[in-house]
Amino acid sequence: MDSCLTATLAAQTHEIHLLHVTYGQRTAAREKRACEEVGAALGAKQTLVVSIEHLKVFGASSLTDAARKVEVFDANATGSGEVPSTYVPFRNGNLLAMACSWAEAIGADSVWIGAVQQDSSGYPDCRREFLEAFEKAVNLGTKPDTTIAIRAPLLDLSKTDIVKKALALGAPLAKTWSCYVAETQACGSCESCGLRLRGFAGADAKDPIPYRSP
Amino acid sequence: MDSCLTATLAAQTHEIHLLHVTYGQRTAAREKRACEEVGAALGAKQTLVVSIEHLKVFGASSLTDAARKVEVFDANATGSGEVPSTYVPFRNGNLLAMACSWAEAIGADSVWIGAVQQDSSGYPDCRREFLEAFEKAVNLGTKPDTTIAIRAPLLDLSKTDIVKKALALGAPLAKTWSCYVAETQACGSCESCGLRLRGFAGADAKDPIPYRSP
Repeated sequence: MDSCLTATLAAQTHEIHLLHVTYGQRTAAREKRACEEVGAALGAKQTLVVSIEHLKVFGASSLTDAARKVEVFDANATGSGEVPSTYVPFRNGNLLAMACSWAEAIGADSVWIGAVQQDSSGYPDCRREFLEAFEKAVNLGTKPDTTIAIRAPLLDLSKTDIVKKALALGAPLAKTWSCYVAETQACGSCESCGLRLRGFAGADAKDPIPYRSP
Repeated sequence: MDSCLTATLAAQTHEIHLLHVTYGQRTAAREKRACEEVGAALGAKQTLVVSIEHLKVFGASSLTDAARKVEVFDANATGSGEVPSTYVPFRNGNLLAMACSWAEAIGADSVWIGAVQQDSSGYPDCRREFLEAFEKAVNLGTKPDTTIAIRAPLLDLSKTDIVKKALALGAPLAKTWSCYVAETQACGSCESCGLRLRGFAGADAKDPIPYRSP
């Protein structure tokens, strides 16, 4: 949902090239289909799907390790400061490094990421300070004539704001997938489903994707 | 050679875990063997080999694209400031992101890289400013209790210094591979062979690996 709105915003001013990364996450196949369908709906110039194995090989996350349990969403959690088990060590650093390589290879001026800092799971690689520091590193580590901006237009939005904005812009939300554990009907209870459903409830709208009966 | 000396230095104070990445470079299989043999010689706790496809898929480098020509080394080049065709867009950003994920997953305190800034090919992702900026980004983008130092002990050494130091420490140079294009006998003429051979000549030593007859 976040990636979809981000791509919709990027498409307002840019020709867009979408990158989907399969890194051993449980719902990789469903996410890949979502990315391809969102790309088609937005008229993306290119939708590239690549596969990496290292994040799964390194382990340490319930998102890539079937033996670990994915936490159930707790709507009343007050923010313990604990990083959830679904955190994949430095995942966004890897995804951004990949996207920046591609951006430099094709001469793109910016890399857009659907990171959300507020109203999120508290992943450290979704914070503004990180994204700003990474942008600096990228521009020091690429060719002198390469300039790449890291854009994260959803950073300070709530999930409700995201749903409202996506609906207002006609972003193809029906093509998206958020569930961490299921691929046919969303589970409705993992952290990612919980945040998504809370966003739709806040926007007083119905989520168009299928959910398991409770 | 640079990775080997770096690992040798790290092993003086740390338990070492070596990471080899196959990213579509021409001599990936030979490099992988070199990494495994260096790891065995140094008593590495673990030597992990992972494969990524995206750098090759993105293209834009003669190192991963057989249709592009690898430049011949020019010992008299005065440094045009041109980045050579073997530059893989933001490669070290990707390699460091991978290594930092692994470091966070296993609780390592540092990531060591054999980047050489002086006496090198002028790759932008081998510069001190980049490595320092990346270290900052990593520590902002990982868990609050994760601290990872990026160590590049060869940054300011010449290739001659590197060979001398490696010989003095008994680093397993005979196990290493540098050639960009050949896997059985080094070509002796690519940029990487040229820098290596100049290092051995400067150290008044004989390179133990096999080269094609000129």
